[in-house]
Amino acid sequence: MSQTEWHETQIRVRYKDTDRMGVVYYGNYLTFFEVGRTEFMRDLGLSYSSLEAEGYALAVTEAYAKYHANVDYDTKIIVKTAITNLTKVRVRFDYEVIDREENILVTGYTVHASINENKKAARIPASLRDLIEKSLK
Amino acid sequence: MSQTEWHETQIRVRYKDTDRMGVVYYGNYLTFFEVGRTEFMRDLGLSYSSLEAEGYALAVTEAYAKYHANVDYDTKIIVKTAITNLTKVRVRFDYEVIDREENILVTGYTVHASINENKKAARIPASLRDLIEKSLK
Amino acid sequence: MSQTEWHETQIRVRYKDTDRMGVVYYGNYLTFFEVGRTEFMRDLGLSYSSLEAEGYALAVTEAYAKYHANVDYDTKIIVKTAITNLTKVRVRFDYEVIDREENILVTGYTVHASINENKKAARIPASLRDLIEKSLK
Amino acid sequence: MSQTEWHETQIRVRYKDTDRMGVVYYGNYLTFFEVGRTEFMRDLGLSYSSLEAEGYALAVTEAYAKYHANVDYDTKIIVKTAITNLTKVRVRFDYEVIDREENILVTGYTVHASINENKKAARIPASLRDLIEKSLK
Repeated sequence: MSQTEWHETQIRVRYKDTDRMGVVYYGNYLTFFEVGRTEFMRDLGLSYSSLEAEGYALAVTEAYAKYHANVDYDTKIIVKTAITNLTKVRVRFDYEVIDREENILVTGYTVHASINENKKAARIPASLRDLIEKSLK
Repeated sequence: MSQTEWHETQIRVRYKDTDRMGVVYYGNYLTFFEVGRTEFMRDLGLSYSSLEAEGYALAVTEAYAKYHANVDYDTKIIVKTAITNLTKVRVRFDYEVIDREENILVTGYTVHASINENKKAARIPASLRDLIEKSLK
Repeated sequence: MSQTEWHETQIRVRYKDTDRMGVVYYGNYLTFFEVGRTEFMRDLGLSYSSLEAEGYALAVTEAYAKYHANVDYDTKIIVKTAITNLTKVRVRFDYEVIDREENILVTGYTVHASINENKKAARIPASLRDLIEKSLK
Repeated sequence: MSQTEWHETQIRVRYKDTDRMGVVYYGNYLTFFEVGRTEFMRDLGLSYSSLEAEGYALAVTEAYAKYHANVDYDTKIIVKTAITNLTKVRVRFDYEVIDREENILVTGYTVHASINENKKAARIPASLRDLIEKSLK
């Protein structure tokens, strides 16, 4: 792949997302990553819910987040998502969470293994693979 | 039933439970109610997980909470739980959440309908009914 | 007030919102209520975050939810919100959560007490009261 | 430091922790890490809440988790926590989450920067440093 194409999703920080420090609790960024990749896949042409309906799932095997700056309640943030690696059975998503002034808040990635309905490792379905490969070019 | 027998479960407030006000987020008390009734049922002699393993579930139909006082991170709180009503298909749990000085923090209740593995209304399983009735006396 | 004016906010159910039953966890509807009233207030003309910035808060004193039907991951739901009661120091919000086929999922309400920056009971600020009264007519 | 001393904390998986896959949602392990390091610090002799009461905080700068196996509702899990690195301003905690058969579920780490009440970088307070150094030996 030549150049990363970032997909963008907007999220408004909820009161529920904050903690006593007055900022988003660190673990909640993994939920924001989830929203980012869900909307990325939907725009790719294959929603994650339809993938699960077909009996496949992308089980998380790794997650990493680096925290650069904090935001508080009611802030509009943008989750930028890209697929940065693809093997027969694994896919890696990278994320950049920024605010509307383009300050970087959190960066990170998740790695997922394709599994079938018996929760066994399985090749990434061709329908998804084709869409991803097209997006990587 | 004559007199309410309260079951007690202790919970330590996590950082994750708090919000920017520096207190437990209001919706999280419904999680504390869940912990209260889970431990109540376990001590009754039939854990909720084994009930689900048998194909039954107690789907929540109503939840109410009244907020009396707030607590912050790291506080040890006690969830008092009792079953206060039982019909063929429904059971009601009442809750009192207190701190260790016995200040009342939150009171409330949940109502649950018994459903079977097809998610249809079903009589409360006899195994559970017997244990509850014994506890109500 | 004559007729309830419902404000509508759309939410997409996240994977994080679901539980092992394959539906939204019951406590998470209180978060959806929060989103409903936040967007309601913003559209009224006074965002809740600016109210807190002025030193006021609307502390929750009661919350109630009645569960009519379940929804699973990725469903688009609509939170309908209205203010149904207003006193010198309290305000009540009512909610109806529906899906896009207008099936009622959850109904409920929350009651809030106005407090000042010392966390003492305080009259609802005039700026907010005026906007609410205008919306109630 | 010679040999890692693991501190152990037990957690019971709540219904709230699970997702539609019937296992703990991946982001919730960061909450379990929080519980692990909170109890570790308490047993070290300086609770995190008292550290914050003194005006200090350990802001998370990085978090990583590797997912080895899943667990479902009601499982008792153990969070093993150790401090594995300490500089003037940073501390790193490592985690191993296991079940009672000692199956490894999740491993990971978090890195924290010491900040003062103005949210500026600050040396780790001597009271905490002494306790950590003693534990590292």
